[in-house]
Amino acid sequence: VKYLRNSWYCAGWSHEIDERPKGIRMLDEYLVIYRGKDHQAIAMTGRCTHRFAPLDQGVVIDDDIICPYHGLRYGADGVCKHNPHGDGFIPPRAKLNTYVVAEHNTALWVWMGDAEAADRTLLPPETALVSAEYSSVRMALKLPVNYQLIIDNLLDLTHAPYLHSSTLANTEGMSIADIPQPGFEFKAEGDTLKSHYHFDVMPPSPLLAPYFTDPVGEFNAEMAWQPASTLSLDVRMDPLAGGQSEFIDMPSVHYLTPETADSTHYFTAISRNRDIHSTDADEHMRMLASKAFLEEDEPMISRCQELMGGNPDIFEMGAVMLRTDVAGVQARRLLKKKIEAESGTQELQDAG
Amino acid sequence: VKYLRNSWYCAGWSHEIDERPKGIRMLDEYLVIYRGKDHQAIAMTGRCTHRFAPLDQGVVIDDDIICPYHGLRYGADGVCKHNPHGDGFIPPRAKLNTYVVAEHNTALWVWMGDAEAADRTLLPPETALVSAEYSSVRMALKLPVNYQLIIDNLLDLTHAPYLHSSTLANTEGMSIADIPQPGFEFKAEGDTLKSHYHFDVMPPSPLLAPYFTDPVGEFNAEMAWQPASTLSLDVRMDPLAGGQSEFIDMPSVHYLTPETADSTHYFTAISRNRDIHSTDADEHMRMLASKAFLEEDEPMISRCQELMGGNPDIFEMGAVMLRTDVAGVQARRLLKKKIEAESGTQELQDAG
Amino acid sequence: VKYLRNSWYCAGWSHEIDERPKGIRMLDEYLVIYRGKDHQAIAMTGRCTHRFAPLDQGVVIDDDIICPYHGLRYGADGVCKHNPHGDGFIPPRAKLNTYVVAEHNTALWVWMGDAEAADRTLLPPETALVSAEYSSVRMALKLPVNYQLIIDNLLDLTHAPYLHSSTLANTEGMSIADIPQPGFEFKAEGDTLKSHYHFDVMPPSPLLAPYFTDPVGEFNAEMAWQPASTLSLDVRMDPLAGGQSEFIDMPSVHYLTPETADSTHYFTAISRNRDIHSTDADEHMRMLASKAFLEEDEPMISRCQELMGGNPDIFEMGAVMLRTDVAGVQARRLLKKKIEAESGTQELQDAG
Repeated sequence: VKYLRNSWYCAGWSHEIDERPKGIRMLDEYLVIYRGKDHQAIAMTGRCTHRFAPLDQGVVIDDDIICPYHGLRYGADGVCKHNPHGDGFIPPRAKLNTYVVAEHNTALWVWMGDAEAADRTLLPPETALVSAEYSSVRMALKLPVNYQLIIDNLLDLTHAPYLHSSTLANTEGMSIADIPQPGFEFKAEGDTLKSHYHFDVMPPSPLLAPYFTDPVGEFNAEMAWQPASTLSLDVRMDPLAGGQSEFIDMPSVHYLTPETADSTHYFTAISRNRDIHSTDADEHMRMLASKAFLEEDEPMISRCQELMGGNPDIFEMGAVMLRTDVAGVQARRLLKKKIEAESGTQELQDAG
Repeated sequence: VKYLRNSWYCAGWSHEIDERPKGIRMLDEYLVIYRGKDHQAIAMTGRCTHRFAPLDQGVVIDDDIICPYHGLRYGADGVCKHNPHGDGFIPPRAKLNTYVVAEHNTALWVWMGDAEAADRTLLPPETALVSAEYSSVRMALKLPVNYQLIIDNLLDLTHAPYLHSSTLANTEGMSIADIPQPGFEFKAEGDTLKSHYHFDVMPPSPLLAPYFTDPVGEFNAEMAWQPASTLSLDVRMDPLAGGQSEFIDMPSVHYLTPETADSTHYFTAISRNRDIHSTDADEHMRMLASKAFLEEDEPMISRCQELMGGNPDIFEMGAVMLRTDVAGVQARRLLKKKIEAESGTQELQDAG
Repeated sequence: VKYLRNSWYCAGWSHEIDERPKGIRMLDEYLVIYRGKDHQAIAMTGRCTHRFAPLDQGVVIDDDIICPYHGLRYGADGVCKHNPHGDGFIPPRAKLNTYVVAEHNTALWVWMGDAEAADRTLLPPETALVSAEYSSVRMALKLPVNYQLIIDNLLDLTHAPYLHSSTLANTEGMSIADIPQPGFEFKAEGDTLKSHYHFDVMPPSPLLAPYFTDPVGEFNAEMAWQPASTLSLDVRMDPLAGGQSEFIDMPSVHYLTPETADSTHYFTAISRNRDIHSTDADEHMRMLASKAFLEEDEPMISRCQELMGGNPDIFEMGAVMLRTDVAGVQARRLLKKKIEAESGTQELQDAG
């Protein structure tokens, strides 16, 4: 499987990374991540050059990490600086890859491609996660499915009234024929692709209801994707003319990092601009979001993947495309093109 | 793996199929089966054309089934008749395969091949399952083994005194040297192959004993196979001259449906012509049959498959054939020939 | 995967093999082992020639074994001598492979190669296991890793202070910088390769401490490997000048038998020359050794194998070699050369 390497991938929430080494597999590679003596994050290959021992079981001293198997010590530059055995000779090849990192929007990002090409302007936009006007809950999930199937899911929210009838939608017990359909609009802004959904009048979902007291309101949701696999969603409900409720804004981010071809780290966070000091409200929001992702989306996507025989390429599988799939289809095409361009460049370099 | 497609495969007992969609994998394909508004069974591809969602998690309305992921609605002919999204355009390719079905001998049968060729005369014979003179218990098992290894097992019942010493045979605690061997005869009647076993004098097995009170009787058993993988067994014990017991007839069916190359749906039913209104007798018969199939046959066949490295082709594996294997060997050859003929025809059609 | 076939592999401790058939997979092959009427061990293919049934579930009578599925009876020479079915005809191909065995150093050894070439002088040396001056505990473990990774581990004991800080070493709670390093010497004696470790002054490890009462002593350890995969370790602690303690000798054997490419039978025994009649001391020794092998070595080697993507060839993986790896590296080269020589001979024979 080929991935887009020159791209930022989320490796976790910043506050969850500390001086204890954390092992994470990203794009089929093993990494170890920890904070050095100045609190800066350090990311390098997660297996020792000697016998491929797991460095996340090692010990961090200052900026260095020490292998748990035979004690080789590596600096923040990945170079082995101490071999405690025999005459202490260090073979020149005893050097780990290191990765460019960035702290951004309260998360840690790793650039998996050419370090020279690392470009902070390619990081996804900042969101309510850095605003004092919002309260947020952050989650680090892992889903046993290919990341592109999750992108398909997120860029096509028409599934919400069917799959999320009592969490993200409010269609529980409703006859199939009565399920309302939103207005839909697709937008492309450079490499950012957006699906926009709109209801003139809708009752609030269980997720919104605690903060929106009118029986109905105007609903807007916009999911935006940018390569390779970061998404953000703006959900907003406004009072109708004469309504008593204040508007509620509930944005979320969905940072997907492929672990392997069929498993994905799913870093997600959901924010709200109401009742922001209530931990009960935080828990309610976390509970409903967890339920939607882990009990509704994950089993469905996982079963689709199984029924696809493990091939996540919907084009190769001959999937029927609907007009409302436009964002997902374009995202797949764009990502494929970028991966091929990158591979082509790489092959030219290899040949040259 | 190639299967014989132009053949009837059992998909379940008729009384267990209702308006709730049932997912079943047969011959490596995913199917969904349900009953429509006139109670007729409907079988079609079990994954949606759009994103391959599992239709057995969908909702049935009248004859239609609605996808649980995005709400596409398919009619009994497999054609998508409603797309609830956007302008509602339905791509012409949004059509599921449908399968010819038959209700027969209290079971539901699916024709997995060319619908034009579906031929009810190829269904296996009716048995005691449709007779008011018999009481029957039906079971739906799944065995983690290749179906041909189960056919081998069933067409060679000489294993019974070794493997089923306290269920189907009565050899428990007997010295190996004292195990009696039956008279054996092989019969071929068209595509139906039969193994016949006979004892002039034998004590009844635990399965027969409750209905046959003499200490010994004359025993006959005949297993019949027809392509691809349906078998029926007639077991009968008659009193010797001067005996007091009535004869007992205990026929059974063994309908095998390959799920994948190494797992098999095993629909089996066992009937008796004595004590037919006793639910205790039903339970005793079910208990002993379950024990024989699940605790004796399954572990043995499963372990054989493991020791064969997962290759179920006993010819390729160089298995030594005994003369009593004649039915099993002929069945394998006949099935192979039919599969090759079918593939050849298919290739000619593809080329032509 | 190719193994060295003309070599002795341990199949178990002699006292654990009796007239009950034992199934064991060695070098990817299935064997059955049992003792015949004169108590001699018999080793042959563990699956019946007929339908590949597991002979370890069969019955042994005198020197013969009877298949549990259809009752075929094989003699100690592997030849089928009785077919209880039909006219009893026995196909000439109904013959199992048999293997040359040897009882040696309280273990049973199987020669997996050419029977003519079986050479008892290639058995590993006798050890304290056969001495009345020592008490020993024997263990039969199975590790889910390639055997060569275990050889690497054993031939490079510099990992002990890092991985075995409270069992085989005494470095618990010690700062990494303070971990003492032993003197190291590599020795080659024919095909036997040795790693020797020496400390002039060292406190005894938890394993040695009960038998060595001085606070420190002189420590020597020598691990010896011979092809294909048997190792023995001599550990000895001597009192310093003026010390009160007697020397303690604690030799161990490490007999590795590949089960498959990624699982290994690990037959190990550890002996001591002190307190030899104490079952409490036996238990203490067993407990610490088990902990070191199963809770410290196994998880580490297992995780390394995972991080290597399942390829145990450290050369192909581009592992960095340290000077203290000399024994492990030479052992891998020697084993590779022997396997290639054997394959070459085989290919010549096949061609000639």
